[in-house]
Amino acid sequence: MHTGIGGRTRIIALLGVPTVTFKAPLIYNPWFRSRGIECIVAPMGCEAADFPAFLPLLLRLRNCAGALITMPHKVAAAGLLDEAGLAARICGSCNAVKRDGDGRLVGDMFDGEGFVAGLRGKGRSVQGASALVAGSGGVGSAIAAALARAGARRLALFDIDGDACERLAGRLRTHYPDIALETGSNDPQGHDIVVNATPVGMKPGDPLPLDADRIAPGAFVGDVVLAGEETPFLAAARARGCRTQAGIDMVFEQIPAHLEFFGFPAAATDELRRLAELDG
Amino acid sequence: MHTGIGGRTRIIALLGVPTVTFKAPLIYNPWFRSRGIECIVAPMGCEAADFPAFLPLLLRLRNCAGALITMPHKVAAAGLLDEAGLAARICGSCNAVKRDGDGRLVGDMFDGEGFVAGLRGKGRSVQGASALVAGSGGVGSAIAAALARAGARRLALFDIDGDACERLAGRLRTHYPDIALETGSNDPQGHDIVVNATPVGMKPGDPLPLDADRIAPGAFVGDVVLAGEETPFLAAARARGCRTQAGIDMVFEQIPAHLEFFGFPAAATDELRRLAELDG
Repeated sequence: MHTGIGGRTRIIALLGVPTVTFKAPLIYNPWFRSRGIECIVAPMGCEAADFPAFLPLLLRLRNCAGALITMPHKVAAAGLLDEAGLAARICGSCNAVKRDGDGRLVGDMFDGEGFVAGLRGKGRSVQGASALVAGSGGVGSAIAAALARAGARRLALFDIDGDACERLAGRLRTHYPDIALETGSNDPQGHDIVVNATPVGMKPGDPLPLDADRIAPGAFVGDVVLAGEETPFLAAARARGCRTQAGIDMVFEQIPAHLEFFGFPAAATDELRRLAELDG
Repeated sequence: MHTGIGGRTRIIALLGVPTVTFKAPLIYNPWFRSRGIECIVAPMGCEAADFPAFLPLLLRLRNCAGALITMPHKVAAAGLLDEAGLAARICGSCNAVKRDGDGRLVGDMFDGEGFVAGLRGKGRSVQGASALVAGSGGVGSAIAAALARAGARRLALFDIDGDACERLAGRLRTHYPDIALETGSNDPQGHDIVVNATPVGMKPGDPLPLDADRIAPGAFVGDVVLAGEETPFLAAARARGCRTQAGIDMVFEQIPAHLEFFGFPAAATDELRRLAELDG
């Protein structure tokens, strides 16, 4: 059985710590193989302190097609870019970086669009909705920005780092002045869309990130956490009758855009799902 | 078909340029897979100017088991070590690096021992032999040092960079004062062992690295170049009746020692050969 790695293999690095919950290699790599594309997504557990020096050097490798960025590096990555896409500029974070023909670092943020694409695919419109997004880091910022772009009427933002939350609110107000923006409460009551974009739920024994008892049964509940087939938070929401979206859905829904960004043929999400080697 | 790359996968980087002729991934990776070890050897085409900054950061990745070093970085790698093994100290070059428990960079040079192990496996004794080694870079230095250690009587060294050649000769004289050391001629006549340790032969259309017509039919001829199944130089030597050793043999013969260095179970060379996914 051929492993498919040889001297012509290109690399997309997947940068973050911890690496154990990484799912992207199990989705991208079978697809590359099925298409006969000599490229692998390789996990790289980069420490936060090393990231600003490591990323630019990594992207100078002759066979590096780019890097996927995950926690805790998404905000730091945005600060390293020579050119940031619109979503990255609004979010102040970035989850895909490459070098352009002149060697400049170019990046964008695809998490939010992936999240909203998943919602739409499940029949949940964002237009006119009220949403709570817990977590104002890289992925939370992206989801909030994508919800704003998709026509949300009201956005409540919450983070244990109140300053990060206020900064995000400020950036969103600049770009979307008509949206009702609130900060300081993580009460899900009264929201049509409730999102956990914090890391709470990654570790076994974590408390629920939000009070699931106060989520309306008609609300749509999303979680970005990738650990396990269904997080306890989503299980609690589903038990209340809510429709839900798992972190892995957000991953799948943005891959076609990522592949295009890195210069590969675009893939269909259902093709990626069919080929993926996930256990769940 | 499972690609075998996931969140728990460790990486051994294979650093060098160009990457196209890399063979190690096709040998290590099937073996890792057959043993159920979650590790891959991944090619990384690092530019020489980036190498000193990139290597230490790369080895700080939580899931990096170490790095294999190939052209043109073997000499530079030796200069970055906190602790060098005996072979690396003699050669001034290094082809395997890891961090120890204290974060120090530890490395050694296995090319020479691999080359000599291959010679011995083919029935060619080094004790008392006269050898020409063309190329005084990382691999040439390693082969010369290993031939000296194995009891060669006379060593002729040649490099288009005469200073590099003289520096190597000086280091060898210090450690092996009884060997007859010569520099400045690449005439293979009169030698029992003739080695091309230059990159000449990597590119199609390269001239022969040495004058094959002046090699004695009873001589043993080795080449370190990995391009193609048999280099034109080895083909010419074989046509004269010489026994030969290809670059890939040197690669295979040192892998058990590399695996042990990186903390994996040692492998048998014949098991590696049986599993390898080489075309030749």
